[in-house]
Amino acid sequence: METVETLHMNKGAGETSYAMNSFVQRKIISLTNQATKKAIVEILCSTKRWPIMKMGIADLGCSSGPNALRVISEIVEAINATSSMLNRPAPKELMLYMNDLFTNDFNNIFASLPSFHKKLSQQKGNNNHHDHNGSNCFVSAVPGTFYGRLFPTKSLHFVHSSSSLHWLSKAPGGLEDERGKGLNKGKLYISKSSPNCVLKAYSQQFKNDFSQFLESRSQEMVHGGRMVLSFMGRESMDPTSPNCCYQWELLAQALMTLVLEGLVEEEKVDSFNAPYYAPCFEELKMEIEKEGSFMVNSHEAYEIDWDDGIELQSDDTMISGERVAKTIRAVVESMLEYHFGSHIMDELFQRFAKFVEDHLSKTRTKYINLIISLVKRQ
Amino acid sequence: METVETLHMNKGAGETSYAMNSFVQRKIISLTNQATKKAIVEILCSTKRWPIMKMGIADLGCSSGPNALRVISEIVEAINATSSMLNRPAPKELMLYMNDLFTNDFNNIFASLPSFHKKLSQQKGNNNHHDHNGSNCFVSAVPGTFYGRLFPTKSLHFVHSSSSLHWLSKAPGGLEDERGKGLNKGKLYISKSSPNCVLKAYSQQFKNDFSQFLESRSQEMVHGGRMVLSFMGRESMDPTSPNCCYQWELLAQALMTLVLEGLVEEEKVDSFNAPYYAPCFEELKMEIEKEGSFMVNSHEAYEIDWDDGIELQSDDTMISGERVAKTIRAVVESMLEYHFGSHIMDELFQRFAKFVEDHLSKTRTKYINLIISLVKRQ
Repeated sequence: METVETLHMNKGAGETSYAMNSFVQRKIISLTNQATKKAIVEILCSTKRWPIMKMGIADLGCSSGPNALRVISEIVEAINATSSMLNRPAPKELMLYMNDLFTNDFNNIFASLPSFHKKLSQQKGNNNHHDHNGSNCFVSAVPGTFYGRLFPTKSLHFVHSSSSLHWLSKAPGGLEDERGKGLNKGKLYISKSSPNCVLKAYSQQFKNDFSQFLESRSQEMVHGGRMVLSFMGRESMDPTSPNCCYQWELLAQALMTLVLEGLVEEEKVDSFNAPYYAPCFEELKMEIEKEGSFMVNSHEAYEIDWDDGIELQSDDTMISGERVAKTIRAVVESMLEYHFGSHIMDELFQRFAKFVEDHLSKTRTKYINLIISLVKRQ
Repeated sequence: METVETLHMNKGAGETSYAMNSFVQRKIISLTNQATKKAIVEILCSTKRWPIMKMGIADLGCSSGPNALRVISEIVEAINATSSMLNRPAPKELMLYMNDLFTNDFNNIFASLPSFHKKLSQQKGNNNHHDHNGSNCFVSAVPGTFYGRLFPTKSLHFVHSSSSLHWLSKAPGGLEDERGKGLNKGKLYISKSSPNCVLKAYSQQFKNDFSQFLESRSQEMVHGGRMVLSFMGRESMDPTSPNCCYQWELLAQALMTLVLEGLVEEEKVDSFNAPYYAPCFEELKMEIEKEGSFMVNSHEAYEIDWDDGIELQSDDTMISGERVAKTIRAVVESMLEYHFGSHIMDELFQRFAKFVEDHLSKTRTKYINLIISLVKRQ
């Protein structure tokens, strides 16, 4: 089953929606903002012909909810600020492409577009001729998987992607024995107890996907174009290190308590492998060098608390475990529901919240977010 | 209130949805198909440099449901067939832009995109090198009003719009007296009883909107680009002729029965003016000549029965009035609901269905659909 058919952030604006539970992702966007600004400055500074007539910008895996338009707003602001700093006219026309899978809630994004355009035209009123108003920013939605072509040849100057590239195009294949039984017993992702073939299959799937990603972008981007990619990864070479696996480990533990009570079949757990991979920088670098179209400009790793950003919620009395569980539920529920059925979701995430609470009281586990800036070679 | 905030086809796939009640619009699309094919042949025949690297195609007012992807499918088929006929390679990359207002159900369209791409790649398998497979067709959604800029400069070769341009950007202004009372008493649109200022205001609003439409497309289209516009109009010079007003006349009659019973305030009816206009060819021609960027290539008018296309529904036992009422409800409900409240919608459309049934038993009133083909001047 391909990720494109099973993964979407929880829709709407209800209690379990992604729109209401995407504070960690917002934190990650704000961490990525410096790299984005730097890339925009580099693109504009390396431009030889002014004014730039058309500039293509894509946000890959834009999701929905308040984060979706935040990224492109910040990019437009960075373009305006840089043009002003360089005392140059801003690019004449900006094409702003919002990408996510077919099942993403694009209607939710579009409902906010009139106020996005209004904000841009107000900025124009307050500022000067360098700035973009709404009338020359063309926003469109481009649904589809970024592990293939999405845009015409040489149409993009800047590509941004936040909290998306850790999703594989599909779960790694070949993880069953001859009788079709799952080999990654009692687990949902790479774990200390996983057999070596599981680690290899995950690493291979990541390599295939990431090289497809690079090849597609290589065709779509202009020479000298910049790409800022931000996603879950790891600092250690060891793919079983707790920082990159522990949310899956605890989710598997919660599922196994449902197995013990006969509410979920054990085989169901054994046969599920999350289409997710948290790579280390060395793996990324190897694929980037092999593909050959991009140079690494910079890379960073940040530690992020599991409930980082969540304190921004007002009147929040939830304990930490529950809050973390809600954040993770908003992202992974669609695919777990597809495999295990919707009837156990509430129960599963209640138990998961307790495991998280218990875990955090003992160990301060953090996500590792990698940010990598690439330049398209001449 | 602008149309952009109140008009959308009824969402979802339920009994009153546009997806289930858009047979007349499908009929209109099939009537428009010949003009579309002709325009594609003309674009490709007038091309001097082969292969065409990028071809931009927009469907303005694409709506949702089964009609939405039908149009672009037919356009891609026409491009493949024409390339084959000319024994030329098909354009390398097609950019297919789906446009409608911000509140359109784009999620519904995107859900059908995987099967759209699958169908294209099957065609590729069956046919030859002239054809487009899914991989070089880039589909995107461009939400916003077509009475303003939607696309970058000179990015479009072909523009199609079906059953959309009869919607104005807003209801005509100035239709109240000094005390703020509506001047178009007991009516929702132009009627035999409307004072002359109503006719003038509608005509003026149409002129403003249509010239905005032409100016915007003029900037977005390449020289020699083609546009096929198909929409409700009239053959008579008289804007009160029954074929262009009668659906509104009957809807007003149904509303007035609710007024008589105290269920709707009379002032509410007097103050509502539909943001709709059915122009005649002479009015279109005048605006096209005034704007100056386009030449009229051809124009046609078709009569369409109010329940045309509806016979395609299987196991349909509804009487004609009900079927016509459902078709109209799927289109106009959002804006009537906004003005009159959702609580009276079921009752209103039940009464409307009876008026339609009664009317059709006496008079065979038809819609007039205009199809006009334009060429962007050199």
